[in-house]
Amino acid sequence: MPELRKDPVTDRWVIIATDRARRPADFVREPVSATPSGRFCPYCPGNESKTPPEVMAYRGNTGRNQPGWSLRVVPNKFPVLGIEGELHREGEGLFDKMQGIGAHEVVIESPDHALSMTELSDRAIEQVLWAFRDRMRDLKNDRRLRYVLLFKNHGEPAGATLEHSHSQLIALPVVPKRVTEELEGAQKYYQFKERCVFCDIIRQELRAGTRVVTETDEYAAIAPYAARFPFETWILPRQHRSHYEDTDPSQLKNLAWVLKSTLRKLEKVLERPAYNLLIHTAPLQEAGTQYYHWHIEIIPKLTRVAGFEWGTGFYINPTPPEESAQFLRDAGLA
Amino acid sequence: MPELRKDPVTDRWVIIATDRARRPADFVREPVSATPSGRFCPYCPGNESKTPPEVMAYRGNTGRNQPGWSLRVVPNKFPVLGIEGELHREGEGLFDKMQGIGAHEVVIESPDHALSMTELSDRAIEQVLWAFRDRMRDLKNDRRLRYVLLFKNHGEPAGATLEHSHSQLIALPVVPKRVTEELEGAQKYYQFKERCVFCDIIRQELRAGTRVVTETDEYAAIAPYAARFPFETWILPRQHRSHYEDTDPSQLKNLAWVLKSTLRKLEKVLERPAYNLLIHTAPLQEAGTQYYHWHIEIIPKLTRVAGFEWGTGFYINPTPPEESAQFLRDAGLA
Repeated sequence: MPELRKDPVTDRWVIIATDRARRPADFVREPVSATPSGRFCPYCPGNESKTPPEVMAYRGNTGRNQPGWSLRVVPNKFPVLGIEGELHREGEGLFDKMQGIGAHEVVIESPDHALSMTELSDRAIEQVLWAFRDRMRDLKNDRRLRYVLLFKNHGEPAGATLEHSHSQLIALPVVPKRVTEELEGAQKYYQFKERCVFCDIIRQELRAGTRVVTETDEYAAIAPYAARFPFETWILPRQHRSHYEDTDPSQLKNLAWVLKSTLRKLEKVLERPAYNLLIHTAPLQEAGTQYYHWHIEIIPKLTRVAGFEWGTGFYINPTPPEESAQFLRDAGLA
Repeated sequence: MPELRKDPVTDRWVIIATDRARRPADFVREPVSATPSGRFCPYCPGNESKTPPEVMAYRGNTGRNQPGWSLRVVPNKFPVLGIEGELHREGEGLFDKMQGIGAHEVVIESPDHALSMTELSDRAIEQVLWAFRDRMRDLKNDRRLRYVLLFKNHGEPAGATLEHSHSQLIALPVVPKRVTEELEGAQKYYQFKERCVFCDIIRQELRAGTRVVTETDEYAAIAPYAARFPFETWILPRQHRSHYEDTDPSQLKNLAWVLKSTLRKLEKVLERPAYNLLIHTAPLQEAGTQYYHWHIEIIPKLTRVAGFEWGTGFYINPTPPEESAQFLRDAGLA
């Protein structure tokens, strides 16, 4: 008998198809190639002039837009939103629109074209997480911007168009719908219980253990109870914190370790899957809150989203999260 | 300058990337083949025993589960929800679950394996729309069921696993999130204006004309103002009606014509794209309402959904709906 489960934050129902549980080998594999294609890469050292001028870089004693960097942040060459102009809202009969003001940047995670995120050193991953923090703190100063989404599309089936390992950020003049839903759901829970729903989830999951993937003193990686997708995995700080950019610098090292470990487990069990990774954090211009808790969501690309999902916002997940967590724990990597 | 547009019903923002507007030929085409693969098909006449026993059929003077039908409805062989059992809700710490009770049926639209929906006769399409109505009216009698989603996945990239033309329905014991959002948004608008938001949209669109694809006395096909996807097209009844299953039988003939005309335009302009089609209608057990208005949504599969969309529920649409409507109008089919 399949089971319907409700996400305790957003009230989204998911069908967990327990009878036809799918094991890792049952999915159509489209492994992300480990061999570079050899095509020209604008993100490689020496090609700095092929990107818009850098916003920020971590580098030794070399000049801006020159080689010698270990991480580089540049505006997207084809931005979906432009940074210039006044925010201008307007009606069109009963419709509402505004100018597409915001930022769209690329974090080039390493000078080495051949390395995917899991092949980077712990130090290099920590540096990526620092860059996320630095960019958020900087963009917060622009009062037009209300939300920053940090995300990574790994592999072509997940939407990546260049192979050189990179993440992206899009800063928006509105708080997006999916985030608003989480904020409102978390706020409702807080009003009822006077506790953060994510803190409660972490406590319950760590006690039960069945959906835990990895656990450290500072972070928990879990398969969420109402996972929308097979092998969906979340990483949450165990200590309550609403904004990613307020993460204590000393905690980024531990986060880098948990993130690498989790991604390596997914790569081992699912054979180098394409995936999307994203950070859900509180809106930029809001003060720290008691009810919201930032977290990372990792979604391996294993199934197709079809008419039913578009029509309902309801997901059918063929792998119960207890089983995916078990597979990932059994992968046995550090 | 890209434009941010807000859906007036759900408050979902969409980025319409006006500068890099994509024309039909710019998308990666994966045309749905018109040539049958020759694989065994459980939906073809003569193979009736390969599906679960039929729920309903339109047939001449032949017996149940025998050839001689023009349309057949059968339970899905691998249902995501089961029809048997008591609806039982239960907690698991702070989580909520219930048994996966519901229905999952397949509407086999024609006995002819080689015909896609746009190649069916007008009469045959009308019959499909009748079958949708008949099944909804029947499932309404089961008080455990609160919502029926009717949808069609056409072509493998849109999630279809069998080529023989068919639609599906899933009946659910809960009202799904995306529908709740529409209902709540429409209700809010009604409280404010005392008018149906969809009726207002139809009036404004027909007056402006720029986003109209086809218009008859009874239906309007439009590219929605805040379209999430390129060439997304909606079909709405011009007369207010909240429930699809209350459609006047005399109007189904006109709906069949509009649907076929719209799909044929999409096939011509986009070269036989894969697509998802779905019907949004009011919940089964609710009486007719003044604020909600059923409609069909058609989403051609042209772009990938990646990390940004998963993270935000925000969509980036590279083709302004005014342009997609223009292309479809210019396709010039009846």
